Amino acid sequence: MVNKQFAVIGLGRFGGSVAQKLHSMGYEVLAVDRDPGRVQDMAQVIPHVIEADSTDENALKAIGIRNFDVVVVAIGEDIQASIMTTLILKEIGVNKIVVKARNDLHGKVLEKIGAERVVYPERDMGVRVVHHLISPNILDYVELSNDFSIIEVKAGEFFDGKTLQELNIRQRFGCNVMAIKRNGKYDITPSPNDVIYASDNLVVIGHNNDLQKLEEACAEDE
Amino acid sequence: MVNKQFAVIGLGRFGGSVAQKLHSMGYEVLAVDRDPGRVQDMAQVIPHVIEADSTDENALKAIGIRNFDVVVVAIGEDIQASIMTTLILKEIGVNKIVVKARNDLHGKVLEKIGAERVVYPERDMGVRVVHHLISPNILDYVELSNDFSIIEVKAGEFFDGKTLQELNIRQRFGCNVMAIKRNGKYDITPSPNDVIYASDNLVVIGHNNDLQKLEEACAEDE
Ligand SMILES: Nc1ncnc2c1ncn2[C@@H]1O[C@H](COP(=O)(O)OP(=O)(O)OP(=O)(O)O)[C@@H](O)[C@H]1O
Ligand SMILES: Nc1ncnc2c1ncn2[C@@H]1O[C@H](COP(=O)(O)OP(=O)(O)OP(=O)(O)O)[C@@H](O)[C@H]1O
Ligand SMILES: [Ca+2]
Ligand SMILES: [Ca+2]
Ligand SMILES: [Ca+2]
Ligand SMILES: [Ca+2]
Repeated sequence: MVNKQFAVIGLGRFGGSVAQKLHSMGYEVLAVDRDPGRVQDMAQVIPHVIEADSTDENALKAIGIRNFDVVVVAIGEDIQASIMTTLILKEIGVNKIVVKARNDLHGKVLEKIGAERVVYPERDMGVRVVHHLISPNILDYVELSNDFSIIEVKAGEFFDGKTLQELNIRQRFGCNVMAIKRNGKYDITPSPNDVIYASDNLVVIGHNNDLQKLEEACAEDE
Repeated sequence: MVNKQFAVIGLGRFGGSVAQKLHSMGYEVLAVDRDPGRVQDMAQVIPHVIEADSTDENALKAIGIRNFDVVVVAIGEDIQASIMTTLILKEIGVNKIVVKARNDLHGKVLEKIGAERVVYPERDMGVRVVHHLISPNILDYVELSNDFSIIEVKAGEFFDGKTLQELNIRQRFGCNVMAIKRNGKYDITPSPNDVIYASDNLVVIGHNNDLQKLEEACAEDE
């Protein structure tokens, strides 16, 4: 593992999750917030937490923010603070700045002033959750592009007791079963002759239209 | 398509995204917020938007909330309002209630009082974004379980000009290439003899440990 150094500014739900996950994976991470309460809470979870206002250039310099490989700005509500922070980080010479945006306009400004990546956590999760709402068979849904997705779907009656070969999924639906989940474990090299059970989950990749057809076929059999 | 009816209460970033996505996919959705400004904004995007306070049981009954198949409660900051709303929906007899939670404690309460599903958008996206921070080769990362994930990774020098067979990915790394992205299009049935180019992306499924080994091999060749 390369010894990358991370800093996270703003310890709300998103920033807090980023900092904790980095720490739990063994990375060095400095967490920063201007709110003493937030700092105190986070200090119980990860070792390096500092109280500072990131719109104060001197405060950021004092932290030595220039030495961090990646800085995540996770200030959502105070759009002005988010933009000012990004601007200062860019001026100080931070290489990779990843920023959480509230909306499109906010995101566009961030990109213009040098954010390498802009993320929209609430919006992205909104889209992801919708597929589960539409079909309770769909346990997870990941859009790869506008056209292609991966779904995790309950096998149910449609697949029960049959092999992938018998069901002829690739020919009939144009999508591809990548993994079978059984008893909490994924078999990532399913063979055409494996018998599938109703209680299995299938991880399937395909064009959105094809996945929808498969999903409808599953739902009809319920 | 079955004519499922959806309602979304709370039109912040998450709830707003859920409502818009459902509408754009052709589903009927009623959007509710107590804030007139939010209602006005959303009314320019989707047809059915109502101003109401969801902690007011009579207001919810007047909307006919009982008739909706799925109700999404996307109130995050006002935890009390989120819990009260969920409780009222349950009492009225709404079948499927999906609720956004602020933290674990909030989530546990929601499950106890009858939420069918609790979602943590900021936290989940925090985890998802981290993998991209760690390795810029990793374009997307989806955790299937604690052990198994799917990644989209830049092919880069490591794969350039070679076939999957030559690279022997499955034997050497224990993971499985499910798709090759080239010129914006995914080939979901990659054959062992397909030559891969540095500019391709690969969608790979595997155990987290195996994916990490693959990722390190790719990074070394950069
Ligand atoms: N200038 C600043 N310097 C340091 N920390 C800041 C600054 N401005 C805001 N923060 C901190 O950023 C954190 C997250 O900000 P905020 O709550 O505005 O965003 P949010 O989008 O609601 O976050 P989330 O939805 O992820 O919980 C808060 O803990 C806040 O104290
Ligand atoms: N009792 C209520 N009835 C109807 N709408 C409500 C109620 N309480 C809050 N809302 C609305 O819910 C929306 C989202 O709530 P809030 O901003 O508290 O959550 P949030 O977690 O910050 O949202 P997000 O992060 O998704 O933007 C707001 O538009 C707010 O007006
Ligand atoms: Ca907040
Ligand atoms: Ca918020
Ligand atoms: Ca939020
Ligand atoms: Ca808010």
